[in-house]
Amino acid sequence: MNTYVYGYGPAGKERLIVIDLGVTFPDMDSTPGVDVIMADSAWLEQNAARIEAIFITHAHEDHIGALPHLWPRLKKTMYARKFTARIGALKMEEAGLPSDVLKVVEPRPQVIEAGPFKVQFVPLSHSIPESSALIIDTPVGRIVHTGDFKLDGSPVVGEPFDPLVWHEIAHEGQGVKVLVCDSTNVFSPSPGRSEATLVEPLRKMIAEQKGMVVATTFASNVARLKTLAEAGKAAGRSVCLLGRAMKRMVSAAEETGVLIGMPGTISAEDAVEVPRENLLLIVTGSQGERRAATAQFSRGKYLGLEMKAGDSFLFSSRVIPGNERGVIRIINAFSEMGVDVIDDHDGLYHVSGHANRPDLEAVHDLLRPQILIPMHGEHRHLREHAKLGTAKGIASEVATNGTMIDLTGPAPKVVEYIDTGRIYLDGSVLIGAMDGVVRDRIRMALNGHVLITVIVDEDDAPLGDAWVELMGLSEAGRNGADLVERLEDELAEFLERASAKVVASDDKMDEALRRIVRQVTMEEIGKKPEVTVVVSRLMAE
Amino acid sequence: MNTYVYGYGPAGKERLIVIDLGVTFPDMDSTPGVDVIMADSAWLEQNAARIEAIFITHAHEDHIGALPHLWPRLKKTMYARKFTARIGALKMEEAGLPSDVLKVVEPRPQVIEAGPFKVQFVPLSHSIPESSALIIDTPVGRIVHTGDFKLDGSPVVGEPFDPLVWHEIAHEGQGVKVLVCDSTNVFSPSPGRSEATLVEPLRKMIAEQKGMVVATTFASNVARLKTLAEAGKAAGRSVCLLGRAMKRMVSAAEETGVLIGMPGTISAEDAVEVPRENLLLIVTGSQGERRAATAQFSRGKYLGLEMKAGDSFLFSSRVIPGNERGVIRIINAFSEMGVDVIDDHDGLYHVSGHANRPDLEAVHDLLRPQILIPMHGEHRHLREHAKLGTAKGIASEVATNGTMIDLTGPAPKVVEYIDTGRIYLDGSVLIGAMDGVVRDRIRMALNGHVLITVIVDEDDAPLGDAWVELMGLSEAGRNGADLVERLEDELAEFLERASAKVVASDDKMDEALRRIVRQVTMEEIGKKPEVTVVVSRLMAE
Repeated sequence: MNTYVYGYGPAGKERLIVIDLGVTFPDMDSTPGVDVIMADSAWLEQNAARIEAIFITHAHEDHIGALPHLWPRLKKTMYARKFTARIGALKMEEAGLPSDVLKVVEPRPQVIEAGPFKVQFVPLSHSIPESSALIIDTPVGRIVHTGDFKLDGSPVVGEPFDPLVWHEIAHEGQGVKVLVCDSTNVFSPSPGRSEATLVEPLRKMIAEQKGMVVATTFASNVARLKTLAEAGKAAGRSVCLLGRAMKRMVSAAEETGVLIGMPGTISAEDAVEVPRENLLLIVTGSQGERRAATAQFSRGKYLGLEMKAGDSFLFSSRVIPGNERGVIRIINAFSEMGVDVIDDHDGLYHVSGHANRPDLEAVHDLLRPQILIPMHGEHRHLREHAKLGTAKGIASEVATNGTMIDLTGPAPKVVEYIDTGRIYLDGSVLIGAMDGVVRDRIRMALNGHVLITVIVDEDDAPLGDAWVELMGLSEAGRNGADLVERLEDELAEFLERASAKVVASDDKMDEALRRIVRQVTMEEIGKKPEVTVVVSRLMAE
Repeated sequence: MNTYVYGYGPAGKERLIVIDLGVTFPDMDSTPGVDVIMADSAWLEQNAARIEAIFITHAHEDHIGALPHLWPRLKKTMYARKFTARIGALKMEEAGLPSDVLKVVEPRPQVIEAGPFKVQFVPLSHSIPESSALIIDTPVGRIVHTGDFKLDGSPVVGEPFDPLVWHEIAHEGQGVKVLVCDSTNVFSPSPGRSEATLVEPLRKMIAEQKGMVVATTFASNVARLKTLAEAGKAAGRSVCLLGRAMKRMVSAAEETGVLIGMPGTISAEDAVEVPRENLLLIVTGSQGERRAATAQFSRGKYLGLEMKAGDSFLFSSRVIPGNERGVIRIINAFSEMGVDVIDDHDGLYHVSGHANRPDLEAVHDLLRPQILIPMHGEHRHLREHAKLGTAKGIASEVATNGTMIDLTGPAPKVVEYIDTGRIYLDGSVLIGAMDGVVRDRIRMALNGHVLITVIVDEDDAPLGDAWVELMGLSEAGRNGADLVERLEDELAEFLERASAKVVASDDKMDEALRRIVRQVTMEEIGKKPEVTVVVSRLMAE
């Protein structure tokens, strides 16, 4: 859920550029029912007049996903390379927004001038085409903002890592003042491996399988899709891509000229006619997403295709922490079908898209920045990366969300903490994380919900008994008693005795009825539910 | 969530013994608000008259946790070894149930006769004291039911693995007909390591730390608690145990004579007075449980103690899949405090309590059973273990929940699938997984809840307007419109026009109002909420 801001100018009047507008995904524990989560844009909106432009480093959701939700609040020109811009434009168009506000930028040497900033895009490899570092030149020095990256000399799709270009970047003018750098894999001790190392193992493994082979990876990992497709072809199999997101990525990559030489694929309709031992399906859903192709296969047929005993399934991906349970559920479902899930203990069939610890050190050594600000990763990653920088004599600082850092001096200096937070896309509206809406949902999920309706007549006397409805609670209490009856009896007893003063007051009624409900429910079933009380008052006509 | 049943006798009249009554734990995704989950006991209750006895292999929750919930439904004598029986008795007493129904059994050669079964407990190591295999002799042959186990020649606490005893068991009479065997670690390729291998690395690591050291592991891993305490002592530190579960386990282990020579510990009150570099805290909460000591430390003070920059935290445990998110949250909180979380890449500070693949093969070879039934593990583990058995020429069968297998022949034969399911302890009552209670909670969490109240007079005419309450939904709709107002307007319009026939019918009103609410809410905020309609009808007096 990345959004970064750089500013230059007198304090409080800095001209600003924004890097990336990303989202992150909800979970049942903390954000049930939410669609996507993004950074709270309040500060950016207040300071919109100072924003010169928005730059998007690459088309992963955590960098581009908030475009259609936050752009309307900022309305600034956005710059990205062609594939990234295409994905962004599709998002804008789907939301009924203009897509021409996204400008296509060629990589360095093209320079975008945005107020006091001169910005260049420099190709780096990642698990999506065209991920780019930004070279941000300011009147007080050069910033290298890496975005997500790895060092890959043979990335299958896109430009190989070019140390000469980076040597040049490090030695132009005063060199690099600030490195703002991906930290995701700082705990991975071995140098990262190239995408190209997967080609042979995948080819060999697919050739060895006897039944249908189904492989999943992130839809945006276009290089992997190509590698898998080529491995399938080499093994004499017809290749079929399944899942909307995957087709969309491949189309965008081909249309923008980023993906060349992708083997021909067949449709699902045609795949049904191919003998299963001659088929390779490449499908969405590597994280166990319930509606994606992988999960659908684990439950049965998908577009007329079905996995059977003797088939093989490959996760050419890693599981993002938090998604383990869903992925394991799918693996067990395949096991019940007699499908072999291919084990990737040795990492033969997947490589990470992020620079490992030795690669990060190589980047430090290559760029020799004065200051290092670790980014991308959890706090433990940022802290470890800052330690690494400090150990090399680079002034380093961990910047948590909302931290404003002065980078003009010899060392980073925290100057302000800006209130930040999260906003949720919930259905079609944006809500604040602290609005209480999601908190109420969590409470209903944990505690159940009891509804009490009472009618009060014109003379402030209860008319009939209270009515109780349960949602998400056991109907049978202790010793099999009916919980609704027990509640209605207790409430009736209370209403009979309640003074006119209490009955006349909405607050007093709410408090008293709520207390009785929670007490009785606790006695009967050991839970304290959420309670909604509706007192309807008849008016004299 | 383990419960196994063995039967012997004419079909439908078999005499039965039950092994273990375990629980598993809920999660927000599928079981929000639930306390614990256990096997549905309906079949056992229907056949209670045929049950001879219940045997408990060890005191982990997934084997013993359902005792206080299911015993009252079965009311049979239970057998366990002394430490296990003590833990079980505490559970029974806390639930106000008799604890003398739990009989203490000595290990083999003691034999319990239970109808046609002769049962012996044979010590094996695991991550809790006294885990035991059961030797179940029947008129048609010997069954070895391993329970959870590893092969450990120096387990720190409890009896070392004794190959001679097992050789004897394999060669008595007709030998072993059926091996029912733990499968948890069937995918772990190296032989398991002994608990004793941790002593030196832990000692060394703790001695190297400069600040306070806090270590967590499962409360029931009494051997690990001893190892950690000894390592702390050897490093000149005072040792303090924190967390109710941990103290309870140590007391039970000491009182039953299972734990001998545990170093002396100090109380939290005394620990506050000890210089932090001389302290080792051993605490609960290795799985990130929100209320346990580890999570409390990640949020601030706990019993007057607090972690600070320069302190160290050790997870001497693995993360159970599904708990990653909570554990990572804690690690990041420690990182923000400047606390070093000790990395256990090399597994120096934790060993598993389960037999690895080569150990399982050793057990197959030692016991040479005619039949192998893999147990303990997900389907993929059972399937892999069965493959391993089949490859060795042992007749193997994967038994999923509810499978009844005839073990009397030369190979296992599935004879029946019994309806099984789950029951939930929810507050103080047991509810069925399929009752709809938890489904409704999940729906409220995902979709929010709208309550509609309408009063209808004696003549079947709506009295006043419908009243709308939202719970867990955005109050502001499209273009900032007030959702409640929009809903009330639409409902008012409907009620004005509704025919007396519709208003007179609860079903018709419910359906119509629900439809309007879902439609308007979809338009305004893009969500289809749960809806509860209360129509209150005034009666002519």
